[in-house]
Amino acid sequence: MDRILIAALPDSIGKEVLLKGWVHRIRQLGGINFVVLRDRTGTVQTVFRKSEDLAGLRNEMVVEVKGEVVSEPRAPGGIEVHVNSCTLTGDVYYGASIPLEISNQRSFDRAELGSVLDHRPLSLRNQKVQAIFRIQSELIWAFREFLNRKGFTEIFTPKIVASGTEGGAELFKVEYFDRTAYLAQSPQFYKQIMVGVFERVFEVGHVYRAEKHDTSRHLNEYLSLDYEMGFINDEQDVIALEIDLLKYMFSHTKKACQAELELWGTQVPEFETIPQIALKDALQLLEEKCGKRVKSKTDLDPEGEMLICQYFKKETGTELVYITHYPTSKRPVYTMPDEKNPELTRSFDLLFKGLEVTTGSQRIHDYAMLVKNMEKSGLNPEDFDFYLQVFKYGMPPHGGLAIGAERLTKQLLNLPNIRMASLFPRDRTRITP
Amino acid sequence: MDRILIAALPDSIGKEVLLKGWVHRIRQLGGINFVVLRDRTGTVQTVFRKSEDLAGLRNEMVVEVKGEVVSEPRAPGGIEVHVNSCTLTGDVYYGASIPLEISNQRSFDRAELGSVLDHRPLSLRNQKVQAIFRIQSELIWAFREFLNRKGFTEIFTPKIVASGTEGGAELFKVEYFDRTAYLAQSPQFYKQIMVGVFERVFEVGHVYRAEKHDTSRHLNEYLSLDYEMGFINDEQDVIALEIDLLKYMFSHTKKACQAELELWGTQVPEFETIPQIALKDALQLLEEKCGKRVKSKTDLDPEGEMLICQYFKKETGTELVYITHYPTSKRPVYTMPDEKNPELTRSFDLLFKGLEVTTGSQRIHDYAMLVKNMEKSGLNPEDFDFYLQVFKYGMPPHGGLAIGAERLTKQLLNLPNIRMASLFPRDRTRITP
Repeated sequence: MDRILIAALPDSIGKEVLLKGWVHRIRQLGGINFVVLRDRTGTVQTVFRKSEDLAGLRNEMVVEVKGEVVSEPRAPGGIEVHVNSCTLTGDVYYGASIPLEISNQRSFDRAELGSVLDHRPLSLRNQKVQAIFRIQSELIWAFREFLNRKGFTEIFTPKIVASGTEGGAELFKVEYFDRTAYLAQSPQFYKQIMVGVFERVFEVGHVYRAEKHDTSRHLNEYLSLDYEMGFINDEQDVIALEIDLLKYMFSHTKKACQAELELWGTQVPEFETIPQIALKDALQLLEEKCGKRVKSKTDLDPEGEMLICQYFKKETGTELVYITHYPTSKRPVYTMPDEKNPELTRSFDLLFKGLEVTTGSQRIHDYAMLVKNMEKSGLNPEDFDFYLQVFKYGMPPHGGLAIGAERLTKQLLNLPNIRMASLFPRDRTRITP
Repeated sequence: MDRILIAALPDSIGKEVLLKGWVHRIRQLGGINFVVLRDRTGTVQTVFRKSEDLAGLRNEMVVEVKGEVVSEPRAPGGIEVHVNSCTLTGDVYYGASIPLEISNQRSFDRAELGSVLDHRPLSLRNQKVQAIFRIQSELIWAFREFLNRKGFTEIFTPKIVASGTEGGAELFKVEYFDRTAYLAQSPQFYKQIMVGVFERVFEVGHVYRAEKHDTSRHLNEYLSLDYEMGFINDEQDVIALEIDLLKYMFSHTKKACQAELELWGTQVPEFETIPQIALKDALQLLEEKCGKRVKSKTDLDPEGEMLICQYFKKETGTELVYITHYPTSKRPVYTMPDEKNPELTRSFDLLFKGLEVTTGSQRIHDYAMLVKNMEKSGLNPEDFDFYLQVFKYGMPPHGGLAIGAERLTKQLLNLPNIRMASLFPRDRTRITP
């Protein structure tokens, strides 16, 4: 007999089927012996004839169950399986009690995040946790699908690099045979090189930041969704594409993960466009409309990001807003200055529910201009030899951006901590599991 | 006027168009001023009215050209563009002469690989080199598409890890704040954990091997195409899925990259199935049919891999062959032993034109059995605490494999060196560009 998946059971009422999966929950109620079975498509209530048949069964055991599919209005989903036989194929070894009650959502929700992460092989089996990563996987799927249709080529660039892209700070060192290498902070240089080859490229890959802070918004290894495109007019082309991209990613995820979004009691944002505000105006708005005393004139702090988003949510109904025209001093050396005001750049961040989820800009494409900009910033162009090489061979006006996949997931699902949006998060103190 | 891509020109004969791209080649022939223009979709011959108009034009400059599309049987592709105006948008700075003649294939093919890699931003623009990575990108696209349709979930697992998966050798060390971490050699442990969650998972990601050898088959950072599946009968389920997967990847690439495959003068393999031979029988066959003196009884050397493939090519017409039943001593500790002969394992390699492109097996899924196997191999189970954790919570029979993306590309295109199949290869001495 071939295995049937739980999601396909409604088509098999009255038939005998073979199920394979995990013992999700066991309970005896009013003399009836219920075992909820779980596979990758969901859960189903099974009924064992005799209470002796439950002897030895424990949560998370892997079993094969043969039984008859029965319509039962009182069962969750309106279906249950009356068990004829049950075989153990994957035993458990967790001692007297399981460390996390993954099938009891109320109990699971009370567990400390540290414990949830320590027991990751188990906690990932919780259905709400599973939902996070199904949603993340669909968001990324849609990211690639949209860009592929727009003529972008997927690239895979090295994560072992000889120097930093942002000036050298916050790099993890790698012992690379007899020399020191670093883990890439971003694929920036490489995706620009690839604009010279394929014009439009994207990459989904890990990047690394040796930042010491321990916050709910930072990971030391995270998944960066990058694209870079040539032959643009300016950064507005990069923004326009992202707006269409996000619409596609959200609508795809809405279709693919309806049940998962419901589990988290959330909906994807729906919007026609995304408003933009220059950083200077945003700071002014914070002082005038939100009653915030602004300390820095060159950046938003986390509270400022939150207040700006609340303001736009109230005024325009959208949970997304672009902050544009960051000052030159706050942006990497390769960022295109604004020709009208060279103290500012053709750059932007995208805030989503109060958190930056994207950073992007038009880049400098002229060799001489880039060298001059490096010198102005106190950098030695000779240190960037291999990067500068590409600008010797003719580069079109271009720009791009990076979306933090875990941040996007966190904000979409209103997760309190970004670690919840990483299968196996890496932070200041955690490198296992 | 909107930009038109070169590939779309045949639909615009008689019209004025705007092209954007690179100066691919300049030549004056019989008083006519030809400039071949290149964009991401191909090349087209343009004709400038006066030789003075060519003044200052150099290879790889980025230009915008307006002109009329004309049918011209003598032009490559039967089309040329008669130029009305040409604007420079991306200057070049490479001095007196360009270091690699990327538009002259004969000259390019004579360049040393070292020089090709040193000038990667330039050499990647060569059309045959571009073709390698378009093909690789489509192979990977098809890998994901096929597995997605088969119910696999995409995962992203950490590359910063606390210990090795294969016993500890050949790991790159990372300075991780105040401790030592390592770069992942494979996602093995993590994809097994994820079988406990989603049953069927795949990952496309970098892995790292600190191997010192400098060969045409090894990279220190490479792209691993992994899948892992639960509820299998044995390793034959893993093999059967790969056969269908490879058929899909090859037929997709044949459709998507016909021109690119032609550039390399090659075709994708077409086959009904892939033959299998146990390692012991393969070694015997080498001695008896190929006249090879076999030194090792537990493995094939590169010459042996080549001869076996030649033998099967001659006998069955296929360029692919599985070698199965490697001895326990040669396989990682998590490999399922063959119950009929515990000295052998339920493992396999796939050879493609004489090179191993896949390694896979059924894995041990029982905690007690895995601990015993570790002890037998001289490993301390306590060192694998976090890995062993997953087997305490009920694991189904499962198995999986990893395909080396660069090796697959290399063998498909008959490339002499694997570095040619990596955008920015990392080897013993190379970490730039």
